[in-house]
Parts: sequence; structure tokens; C-alpha cells
Amino acid sequence: MKVLITGGAGFLGQRLARELLARGSLKGADGKPQAITELVLLDVVRASDFGDSRVRAEVGDIAERSVLERVIDERTSAIFHLAAIVSGQAEADFDLGMRINLDASRLLLEVCRQRGHQPRVLFTSSVAVYGGELPDMVRDDTALKPQSSYGAQKAIAELLLNDYARRGFVDGRVVRLPTISVRPGKPNAAASSFASGIIREPLNGEAAVCPVAGATRLWLLSPRKAIESLIAGLELDAALLGNQRVLNLPGISVSVDEMVAALREVAGEEAVKRIVWERDARVEKIVGSWPGRWDTSRAESLGLTGERSFADVIRSYIADEQIQIR
Amino acid sequence: MKVLITGGAGFLGQRLARELLARGSLKGADGKPQAITELVLLDVVRASDFGDSRVRAEVGDIAERSVLERVIDERTSAIFHLAAIVSGQAEADFDLGMRINLDASRLLLEVCRQRGHQPRVLFTSSVAVYGGELPDMVRDDTALKPQSSYGAQKAIAELLLNDYARRGFVDGRVVRLPTISVRPGKPNAAASSFASGIIREPLNGEAAVCPVAGATRLWLLSPRKAIESLIAGLELDAALLGNQRVLNLPGISVSVDEMVAALREVAGEEAVKRIVWERDARVEKIVGSWPGRWDTSRAESLGLTGERSFADVIRSYIADEQIQIR
Repeated sequence: MKVLITGGAGFLGQRLARELLARGSLKGADGKPQAITELVLLDVVRASDFGDSRVRAEVGDIAERSVLERVIDERTSAIFHLAAIVSGQAEADFDLGMRINLDASRLLLEVCRQRGHQPRVLFTSSVAVYGGELPDMVRDDTALKPQSSYGAQKAIAELLLNDYARRGFVDGRVVRLPTISVRPGKPNAAASSFASGIIREPLNGEAAVCPVAGATRLWLLSPRKAIESLIAGLELDAALLGNQRVLNLPGISVSVDEMVAALREVAGEEAVKRIVWERDARVEKIVGSWPGRWDTSRAESLGLTGERSFADVIRSYIADEQIQIR
Repeated sequence: MKVLITGGAGFLGQRLARELLARGSLKGADGKPQAITELVLLDVVRASDFGDSRVRAEVGDIAERSVLERVIDERTSAIFHLAAIVSGQAEADFDLGMRINLDASRLLLEVCRQRGHQPRVLFTSSVAVYGGELPDMVRDDTALKPQSSYGAQKAIAELLLNDYARRGFVDGRVVRLPTISVRPGKPNAAASSFASGIIREPLNGEAAVCPVAGATRLWLLSPRKAIESLIAGLELDAALLGNQRVLNLPGISVSVDEMVAALREVAGEEAVKRIVWERDARVEKIVGSWPGRWDTSRAESLGLTGERSFADVIRSYIADEQIQIR
């Protein structure tokens, strides 16, 4: 089995690749595990190949058809489409967001359709597809009213994938990811970047700015669970999904104040003191339009699970990243 | 004021043009009527100009940027975007539907953005954006789960327009039209074509096939009210719409059996006998996925209204089209 990860050099892409290589197989359409013989990692920068001969790192612009035609052939039976322009950047650069989040996603579906072998394709989507006046708990049948270009582009990609799947051009599925926290590394241009920064930087002895009020409620998932969910989402039996290919992934609903309390529980008051509270209207507007909680009974009935406690999320971050608390 | 109608040679386009010419003006962004000095009718075939010197009939492919650049300039302050590939045809020819219903709609928004004068743009959308398991009454916040490519393309165009409006590229609005009945003329490739045919043909002494069960519930609006709603939708104060630019138009919820009863009331049993009941699974699948009723309180609070009785709809068709009942 040949597998493609777009955005393969990114944070989730690299973790997913490592996990797939460690597992060595993925369930096929018949539900039986098939060995992964080739793992293609496409990105605009060269992805690490982990010194593994199964990996082929490809550099290219995903919005160009020739690039997608190079990495998708009739033997590519599983595609994880993670490449994206994040929310803050898509708001700042409208054309770039449209090109990558919309055009490239459509082109990927088109190349699959042209190949004609109906591969499994998993798109990642986001809380940002929601917005406007939301119920306390967002449900599968709550309308999408994105309040950012990123959210609009993700919602459009969902509709495209659903229709391409309905027509039998691909065997598609979309998982809407909660905000991922705690992400290792540096802050990024996502409006939600602080949701990792206010934990990661203080644990590292550094200051972090929190741009939203403590009462702001977030819907979070750890990187570890996110990777598990991407694989489980791709392996789901198509018959169980029917004509509704979009799944809200389970996560944990916490306020920023509760995140800070969990940080205090795990790392003490010294860490908490490193958070600088400085509200930023631009970030608050985007993040405030996202739901803080959603009904995930459908995903759970399909066997997908999230975390139970944010303190546990912090502890698994410390363990996975081998953090020395300062 | 310069006004553009795309799909200007079509049934709704020609009626809208006639009505605008008769009115002679449209409200501007300041709420004050402005004289219509030029009315551009764009279509793939030459639209009638009604012998009126204000009309400019333009022939061109709306999915080509140069065509849109020819018909939209900085003085084009109102655009009615009616050009579309209907549901049955978009299902039969996927690429054509994508090209006209999605690409051309996006290109129109892009050309407006490039001009930079933030014109009023009205898109028409459809019941077909809904689907899947629907509540008895569809509300503004019911999720869109289109079960046809036409519905997916219309839902995507809605999301695009909403985001272009949010960013200030256009002053956009979308009206979701009920199925229009009674349409004069010939059957077309829309899955809903029968909703006019089973009234129009019997009134004309001809047989008409009804491809769905009598219990099938439809959400209908007369051509007359549809034209009124398009104009009212374009004239609505942008401040009243806020960030939610999509409106479900009021209509009348009737079963096919009730439509037939109304035909009997207006034209007698002879007319009803001309309906041939011959179910078509393809049509039933598409039409059955649409909602039979929706909550239109928002549209009504903005002053938009529909009909009260389907018998009145038939009577107004007979009057408008000067039909002699056979």
C-alpha cells in the first residue's frame, strides 16, 4: 500500500509519518491490515524521511496539478491531506488561503477522480467552520457560519469532499480537529497559537502572551490523540459513514482559566506567573467565534475518543517531548 | 446606476429585467431610489432588450474572466447573479456544474473585488443546499447537507459570497429560492421541472408526467413573488443583514396531492386527468432530499413575503400568462 501525506513536513505530518512507519500497516477498504510499502511526504520544504527506505520526501507546490499528479497514482490508496494555511495567515493573505485551503484541496480530489481508483482520502477540518450565534453544544447538524476566511475555506473543502465521495470519485472522510494543544516548537500564525504557547513557554521558563480573556472556552485535543484520530478516521468503514463524511472529533472543553489551573497543578505557581495577559481584539474575534464544545456522540459511536483531563494533556506533553520543568 | 443580470436571457432574468425597466429605479446603498441608466443582460445566448435603449444585451461565457470584466465596471452598483446550471444537468455533467455554479460565481466575486467599489451582489440559492435527515421545519441554523452536486455548488457559492461580504469585497446577499412554480414555457433539466409541468401542461390541454409520489412535499414560490423577492433582497439595508448574508425566502409548503387538488379547484377534473403518474427514482432521490418547509421568520421580519394558497398561485399564473383553460 502506498500512502500520501500532504503537509508531510509539518508538525502533524511528521508525527503521523512516524506513527505510520512504526505501525507498518493501515487497514484497507476490506478492513484488513495492509503493509505500507511507500510513504510519500509532500510539502513545500523537504520533510524528514527518518532514514526509512519506505519514505519518499517530495518538495512541491500542492496547488500545482503536476505536483499532485507526481505524488498520486493508481497505487496511492490512502491520502492524508494536512497541508493548509492556518487561520491567522489565511485572514492576512486572502489569496494564499484560497489557493492552498480551497484550490489545492479541490485539485487533489480532481487528480484522484482522474486516476479513477477511488482512494481513501482524509481531509482535516476545524472548529473554525462554526461561528455566529452558536448553541452551548454544537451538534453534527448545527449550521456552519464561519467568521474567518480559513473557516470558510475549510467548510468549502468539506462540501467538495462530501460531493466527490457521494459521486464515488473518492472514498472520502473529514475529521474536524479541535484546537491542538500542547503543540511543541514555536508559536505559529494560527489565531489559536496561544492555546499551546501559554503552556509550552512557561514550562520552558519563558514568558507567553495570552491574548484572550480567562473565561474563553476552547475545544482541545492533544497531538497524540489527534494522530490516533487521523489514522482511525482513515480506517473507518465507509459503510458506517454513509453520505455524511464529516466527523466532529472528541476533545476536551476547557476555559483558559482552567488551562492555567491545570498548568498550576502540574508545574506550580512559578510557571503560571510567566503568562502575560494582553488581550488582542483580532485574535479574540476569531477565537471567540469558535464553539467551546461539541456533541461527539457520532464519532464516539465509531470508536474515536479524546482526553478526559487537561492536566493529563500537559503531563503527556511533558512525557512525549521529554520536557524538564523549569 | 448601472445594473447587471447574469443569466439575463433566462426565464427569471428576462422577467427581472422587465420589472426593473418598468420600475425605472433601484434603492442605492443609502436607501434612496436611483434611476437605472444601464441594464446589462449577460447570457450565452442574446437576451431580448425589449427595444429599450437602457438595455445592453451581452453574449459570453460567464466562466471567462474577460467576459465578466467586460460587464462589470466601477459604475456597476447592482448585480443579480442568476446564471446557473440546473440540478438535473449539474448531476449529469459534473464538470459543467462546477464550472458555472462554482467557478463563475467565484470569478464574479473576484472581478468585483478587483474593481474595488464594493457593489451590491445578489446570488440565488436553492432548497437543494439542504438534505440528509431534516427536521420538519428547516431553520436558518439547520446544517447544509446537500445530496446533489448542484446543492453542493450552491452551498459553496453561499460560503464564498458570505466571506467576500465579511471582508468588504462586495456588499453581498443570497436568497434561497423555493422551487419556482408555475414556470411558463417548456420543461427543463431541473429535477423539480415537474412542479410546474403538472400544472402548466394540463392547463394547456396536454399530458404531464409526475415522477414523484403524491405525498411528496414541496416548498414553492410563484415567479411573480420570486422577482419581487430578488429586488427586495438586493435593496435590503446591509446593516440589517450583518455577517449572515443568506436568507431563506418565504414560500408555500404543499404536497403534490395538494397541488393537484388546487388544479382541480381552478381548472376542473379534466385537467387533473392529464397527469400521468410515473415514478422516477432519480428524480425522487433528489427532490426527496429537499426540505418541504422552512422557517422564514428572518426574511419576514425584513419585509419579504410569499404566497398563502397554491390555488392563488395557479390563478396568478393564468392571469400573468393569459392562459385559456382547455
